[in-house]
Amino acid sequence: MDNKIFLCEMNMKEFEVVIESGSPIIIPVGAMEEHGSHLPLNTDTIQPEKIAAMVAEMVGGAIAPTVNYGNCSTTRNFPGTISIDTETLRMLMFEILCEFGRHGAKNIVVLSGHAGSSHMAALREAGKDFLNEYECKLMVLSDYDIAYKLKDELELPKNDGHGGMIETSRVLDIRPDLVGRGEDFVPTFPPFRVLKDPQVHFEGGIMGFPSRASIEFGQRLNLRIARELADMVSEMVEE
Amino acid sequence: MDNKIFLCEMNMKEFEVVIESGSPIIIPVGAMEEHGSHLPLNTDTIQPEKIAAMVAEMVGGAIAPTVNYGNCSTTRNFPGTISIDTETLRMLMFEILCEFGRHGAKNIVVLSGHAGSSHMAALREAGKDFLNEYECKLMVLSDYDIAYKLKDELELPKNDGHGGMIETSRVLDIRPDLVGRGEDFVPTFPPFRVLKDPQVHFEGGIMGFPSRASIEFGQRLNLRIARELADMVSEMVEE
Amino acid sequence: MDNKIFLCEMNMKEFEVVIESGSPIIIPVGAMEEHGSHLPLNTDTIQPEKIAAMVAEMVGGAIAPTVNYGNCSTTRNFPGTISIDTETLRMLMFEILCEFGRHGAKNIVVLSGHAGSSHMAALREAGKDFLNEYECKLMVLSDYDIAYKLKDELELPKNDGHGGMIETSRVLDIRPDLVGRGEDFVPTFPPFRVLKDPQVHFEGGIMGFPSRASIEFGQRLNLRIARELADMVSEMVEE
Amino acid sequence: MDNKIFLCEMNMKEFEVVIESGSPIIIPVGAMEEHGSHLPLNTDTIQPEKIAAMVAEMVGGAIAPTVNYGNCSTTRNFPGTISIDTETLRMLMFEILCEFGRHGAKNIVVLSGHAGSSHMAALREAGKDFLNEYECKLMVLSDYDIAYKLKDELELPKNDGHGGMIETSRVLDIRPDLVGRGEDFVPTFPPFRVLKDPQVHFEGGIMGFPSRASIEFGQRLNLRIARELADMVSEMVEE
Amino acid sequence: MDNKIFLCEMNMKEFEVVIESGSPIIIPVGAMEEHGSHLPLNTDTIQPEKIAAMVAEMVGGAIAPTVNYGNCSTTRNFPGTISIDTETLRMLMFEILCEFGRHGAKNIVVLSGHAGSSHMAALREAGKDFLNEYECKLMVLSDYDIAYKLKDELELPKNDGHGGMIETSRVLDIRPDLVGRGEDFVPTFPPFRVLKDPQVHFEGGIMGFPSRASIEFGQRLNLRIARELADMVSEMVEE
Amino acid sequence: MDNKIFLCEMNMKEFEVVIESGSPIIIPVGAMEEHGSHLPLNTDTIQPEKIAAMVAEMVGGAIAPTVNYGNCSTTRNFPGTISIDTETLRMLMFEILCEFGRHGAKNIVVLSGHAGSSHMAALREAGKDFLNEYECKLMVLSDYDIAYKLKDELELPKNDGHGGMIETSRVLDIRPDLVGRGEDFVPTFPPFRVLKDPQVHFEGGIMGFPSRASIEFGQRLNLRIARELADMVSEMVEE
Repeated sequence: MDNKIFLCEMNMKEFEVVIESGSPIIIPVGAMEEHGSHLPLNTDTIQPEKIAAMVAEMVGGAIAPTVNYGNCSTTRNFPGTISIDTETLRMLMFEILCEFGRHGAKNIVVLSGHAGSSHMAALREAGKDFLNEYECKLMVLSDYDIAYKLKDELELPKNDGHGGMIETSRVLDIRPDLVGRGEDFVPTFPPFRVLKDPQVHFEGGIMGFPSRASIEFGQRLNLRIARELADMVSEMVEE
Repeated sequence: MDNKIFLCEMNMKEFEVVIESGSPIIIPVGAMEEHGSHLPLNTDTIQPEKIAAMVAEMVGGAIAPTVNYGNCSTTRNFPGTISIDTETLRMLMFEILCEFGRHGAKNIVVLSGHAGSSHMAALREAGKDFLNEYECKLMVLSDYDIAYKLKDELELPKNDGHGGMIETSRVLDIRPDLVGRGEDFVPTFPPFRVLKDPQVHFEGGIMGFPSRASIEFGQRLNLRIARELADMVSEMVEE
Repeated sequence: MDNKIFLCEMNMKEFEVVIESGSPIIIPVGAMEEHGSHLPLNTDTIQPEKIAAMVAEMVGGAIAPTVNYGNCSTTRNFPGTISIDTETLRMLMFEILCEFGRHGAKNIVVLSGHAGSSHMAALREAGKDFLNEYECKLMVLSDYDIAYKLKDELELPKNDGHGGMIETSRVLDIRPDLVGRGEDFVPTFPPFRVLKDPQVHFEGGIMGFPSRASIEFGQRLNLRIARELADMVSEMVEE
Repeated sequence: MDNKIFLCEMNMKEFEVVIESGSPIIIPVGAMEEHGSHLPLNTDTIQPEKIAAMVAEMVGGAIAPTVNYGNCSTTRNFPGTISIDTETLRMLMFEILCEFGRHGAKNIVVLSGHAGSSHMAALREAGKDFLNEYECKLMVLSDYDIAYKLKDELELPKNDGHGGMIETSRVLDIRPDLVGRGEDFVPTFPPFRVLKDPQVHFEGGIMGFPSRASIEFGQRLNLRIARELADMVSEMVEE
Repeated sequence: MDNKIFLCEMNMKEFEVVIESGSPIIIPVGAMEEHGSHLPLNTDTIQPEKIAAMVAEMVGGAIAPTVNYGNCSTTRNFPGTISIDTETLRMLMFEILCEFGRHGAKNIVVLSGHAGSSHMAALREAGKDFLNEYECKLMVLSDYDIAYKLKDELELPKNDGHGGMIETSRVLDIRPDLVGRGEDFVPTFPPFRVLKDPQVHFEGGIMGFPSRASIEFGQRLNLRIARELADMVSEMVEE
Repeated sequence: MDNKIFLCEMNMKEFEVVIESGSPIIIPVGAMEEHGSHLPLNTDTIQPEKIAAMVAEMVGGAIAPTVNYGNCSTTRNFPGTISIDTETLRMLMFEILCEFGRHGAKNIVVLSGHAGSSHMAALREAGKDFLNEYECKLMVLSDYDIAYKLKDELELPKNDGHGGMIETSRVLDIRPDLVGRGEDFVPTFPPFRVLKDPQVHFEGGIMGFPSRASIEFGQRLNLRIARELADMVSEMVEE
């Protein structure tokens, strides 16, 4: 099994060894979602996959197959967004977690690229239900939760968000061949409204400053996120 | 009907008049949840009810019966917390909204006292589903979303939260007879963890600085929140 | 805690004491439903709340927050009726009961103002499911089940029902300020039919004899119902 | 097709003719439920099947396949009772009704032998949901609703119920070979209780006076019920 | 009880004896489905009922009430097909199985006349869920699974299927009065397509060679199927 | 967009062009499932991904993100199998299909590597539900359905199945680095049984003849499957 980090590339014997070792299992959750005309639809998939791979190397973890579809409501009416219901996402993640629990996993990290609040709530609810069934330690987060916490430290624009400087930089680091030039835009949404057509408020499909993105910044950010997460995962494992 | 603001105190003819007027309908959402040993279990119910009444006066709205039960996971293991599943809450709110939509409501505000992320996500998901069925303008928020935004302006401690200075002050303004003395406490949760027993991290059931609470501050805060919300509601109605 | 009877006005310590005492917990279930042009939409809410308060005084019980929405199909097409699905009501009540069961409640009374057969069936099904999970004694009833049983003894008209003499009298006792003058009407429904538009059979939204209502009769009736229920609750507790 | 009354014995062409004629479709709903040691488990199935056949002859209707399983909670812990959840029963009946509606049925009678309140509520809820989807006239009833209404007229004992004089007589008329001798028993249930073990209150599994049953009475009763129902169905069809 | 084979004709005491004996319980699953203009709509019901009766005689088993409705998608748009959703069928069968499990059944055979893949999958999923709850031995099959396995041995046409030679012969053996003359037809479906209107590919509603059917062949086939099944059931019981 | 075949590598503008072109969209469905000690857990994922890529090249189609988790019951108790419920899989696929339908897709192929009957039924049910909502042409199949049809032509052993000669050869063609040496085994399952512990009948986790596998055969087979599928897809598109 040597240095295999992807569970799915292992056979059943190798899987058994990993589970018994107590190594943390990272489950990446992606999304198929528009990110403007300059970023690919898998923007929210390749970021957590990249971080998962880095963290797995750092802490000796193993990576489960990615959940490739998520819940994306704000961008739903743009071309390219495929959004599943939060209840379906919750059931799906609950059952995946229970299966790992059944096999004996002791440390699990659900790492989502998409950070929508309903999407994340569905994953966390799945996690709570899972912990009622199995004895296990569990983290559920978006790698963007970490990225956004660094805004002050890195003196980034407060309004940078979906498809903005941070996200564009990170994708530049991962798949530069898929990145084009994006136009900066800061939308204004009416406060606390639930909207049927949120897309009218940001016609380009992005919120933030992609023009300020750079591959160096993306590299630095991805490394930083991976390290922070690796530390948190290590703490959980050793707890 | 004069100055009745509670829909439930109207008869069916009066209800019809209110609906046809297009007045905003406010649906308070409460919770039965522990808030330490110094605050009552309906802390998250009486706050949005108070704000709803103030806003209804300010903008000429009407108030629907309160949804008295919500989803509370962090505090669930303390005595007094009654938590329903997010999916049940979503169905309940979806059906209530659809019924108001069926009767012809054109402006609805769902105002929750509890602000847990899964709880709020359930209410918003209900709202999105509702907007797929009916033509209506809709806000979904917690009054605490407004309170917390004022932290900088009012120079409040960043860590003040559940049962803290803000909440204690607001309840002092509403039902001083139900408030005792609370002890300050700032918990540390392991980051991004989903926990089966979160209560071990804050044994008193609160997070923040209740000792700094005052009735005057509560009064000022409630008035400010009501005014901000009244402005937002007016904008929605006039849109 | 002295003489607090509302669970929600207690803090978590007081709640714990009540639960441990084994006192019966009464959960009022209301509805937002038209009751003609002479009664308020909360007619089915304030009656069980009144009875609950009287019974709690008589037997030393405590009152949970009211479930303010129910299932109302016959009146659904009149203005003011907000009806949730029976399955949602069942889930909601099931989860509330389970939460009280989890905290250790030993005697629970679900007291509904609305007495529709599907509505009551949903509450009873919730109760049966609950008893499969927790050891507890449980009553589920409508206060109208008691009122109607007294018809013979009190020589009341057989056809008096929704918004009629009994109901109008009882609300007169509770909130006389909300009661107007109602016109008597006895509808004829085609037997055993499930109807899409039942409202065409009683255009005023009532069935019975509101003109014969009086505050004295309401007072007498409410007291009688409360006493009968108090006896039944006491028997359950002592069983 | 001549005088076929069972839809299932027809081929697809014959079915089409019946549907287009607008003839009422009767869907019998049975149950597998203990009825003491003197009556068969299909007591609640063969009664509505018998009545359905008689009514179909009288009014020219057609009979759908029987739904053989229902919801039976009071008797559930006796040997022989197979009880399905009310929600499953509701879904099942809803889908059956919608299928008949899709084919063009215009008059449907759901005739249940079992008369439990939750069981009947499930069937009626299914009916309401169905009427939201299809234009159709619909009755939902238990043949026991008719039988019990005749108690006064026929001077029957008030407490006669499950497995009692009425039921035993009716089954004697239908399948005398399956009927034994039952012992009279009148149980006392604690009022309004939801019970986990209701069987302890009537250990023989019956409530009423089977010793007074006779085949002549059963014959008369079945004929009377069929005629009353035939009249109601005719009225519905002609409406 | 002597030689009663139908559980529903037993009373509760007789049922108890059968369950305790460990005799296999056969649950026939039928369908209301078009089978061309020459076969009745209950074609898929009377076949498993016949086989169940034969097998019960052979091995000393008992027969539960038939589930009369199934999931039929290919024929759904023809007159006479009543199709319920697979999820409803799964729930229904799951609950029936659990009820038999609760009473102590140790050997169960679910025998379906309809053999559609989604229909059978629903029954098998119900079975898997059931085995997670109760200790029991369980077979789930269609009698057509056995019939089709004999095609080679009996030198039958490969394309004979729905309403064809096999099915027509078997129904001729069971209810010759319900069988007319069918026309042979072999449809061509586009491969692996999910079709909204599959009926356009076989307008007569059948697939196969009904013209070659005979009562003798039907008799022989039914006997053969019953014997094969009886052997399999015996093996299961003795296991 | 040039020759991009993965939808997820496109941005929203490119996605729009593909959808409007009417190109077939292929949705690969994988599984995480043990395939013995000689094949990786993603055996059922990389095969349809490979075929999808080949077919997309041949017919000018585009590939959606893979659904990486499926329903696997027979192998569930071996290490490495992660099985989700069929109802969850059905909801997930239904929603994904509806989202593509909403965007305007006109030709969709759901291509599953895993071929379990319940798993496939769930995908097909999702497809039927989808076709009730959107106008679209749809295929649902497993690439193994094609492979197995070639058994006669290629003179392959009849009993070769899960992890056998065919599967091992195909994976050798795709990821030879992940393939070890497997031992031949032909299990005997008791007929038509639903089993709680099916793994006891094939302890090595495979059924068939992996020892006869070769990379050349795998190459030939994959090419053949891709060509057959490409032809079918072309026919569907041109229909």
